[in-house]
Amino acid sequence: MKKPPRRTAERILSTALGLFNRFGEPNVATTLIASDMGISPGNLFYHFPSKELLVNALFDAFEERMFHLLPAAADVKDLEHAWFFMHSVFELIWEHRFIYRDLNDLLSKNRHLESQVKEVLQRQRQAFEQLLKGLQANGLLAQTDTEHKSCATHMVVMLTWWLSYEYVQDPRHAMEDNNANRSALRGAQQVLGVLLPYLHAQPKAQLQSLIQVYA
Amino acid sequence: MKKPPRRTAERILSTALGLFNRFGEPNVATTLIASDMGISPGNLFYHFPSKELLVNALFDAFEERMFHLLPAAADVKDLEHAWFFMHSVFELIWEHRFIYRDLNDLLSKNRHLESQVKEVLQRQRQAFEQLLKGLQANGLLAQTDTEHKSCATHMVVMLTWWLSYEYVQDPRHAMEDNNANRSALRGAQQVLGVLLPYLHAQPKAQLQSLIQVYA
Repeated sequence: MKKPPRRTAERILSTALGLFNRFGEPNVATTLIASDMGISPGNLFYHFPSKELLVNALFDAFEERMFHLLPAAADVKDLEHAWFFMHSVFELIWEHRFIYRDLNDLLSKNRHLESQVKEVLQRQRQAFEQLLKGLQANGLLAQTDTEHKSCATHMVVMLTWWLSYEYVQDPRHAMEDNNANRSALRGAQQVLGVLLPYLHAQPKAQLQSLIQVYA
Repeated sequence: MKKPPRRTAERILSTALGLFNRFGEPNVATTLIASDMGISPGNLFYHFPSKELLVNALFDAFEERMFHLLPAAADVKDLEHAWFFMHSVFELIWEHRFIYRDLNDLLSKNRHLESQVKEVLQRQRQAFEQLLKGLQANGLLAQTDTEHKSCATHMVVMLTWWLSYEYVQDPRHAMEDNNANRSALRGAQQVLGVLLPYLHAQPKAQLQSLIQVYA
């Protein structure tokens, strides 16, 4: 049995995600999304009565996948696994990069994001702390409790704003689709680079060579 | 001899800076700036025919002061000095925080910023590399050339997006004027925190206690 309304809602979400990622959320009106799909503004309005609801639906889908992914941090036992985990986190961020492009402006206008983005960053910080403790339990690094916390905070800042750093270097191309793979690799490299100085000599050499192989 | 036109231009710049910092550049129209000053939109237009020119004038003043400050990194010989230097850099950023609040959107719309922000980050990265080499020459830390570079890059990311991180935690208050002093302190603490793991034991203890005294 077909359910056309739901299919339209999904198409709206995927079109909006593509346009937001490409041009930035502040620069994409709902009328542009409708015309890009060849539907009437009224039809779009029937599914999403405001742009905010559209942004929230996209954000919630992102958040759900992020919360599904983060608990894997607790199972990270070695650096190859850490690399794979961080790369997956970055791919997810890349798919929803519009949230990261205009984060502060979105937060200032949207109460749902105001509370939820904070929650995402907090859970990421906790996941990274677990990852660091796991690596320590497996004898790969040495950190005090304070260092666990500050290192996890630095990792979250790198994770959240690395795309912005790349954007500053090259605003016209950094967010383009064909940059996806390289960007996720460089992101994982930068976030894990934060813990390099804490690693013991042998795992440090291993992470450095992992970074070089993939970079 | 009075020069009223120039005084008006200066007043426009300082009013615009205050409003941009408080509400975000995308949310402040030039008509709001004029009405806040009690001048006509035409008078403002006479001095600044577009909001972009106003943004550029504010950015250029910021950039000039930043480029004046950064060479001091080469003279940093100890951690107290490093702390003082980083705190000064952060105070300057705080005074012009509107640039940092909506950085990606400003870059996407403004060719002058597109080239100049990149230049600012590059000069900061170079200044931090010099600072790290200076500390190394004075026997306070041990880094390879690759580590100098990646550590300086991490410091620039922390410097540029630390305010955004605080904004996520508390969007309604993080950018308010009365947060200035604490914010500059936390920022300096986070940026210098990046080099903690590279420091030898005694300077590491010194930086940790500097951070605690001021925090």
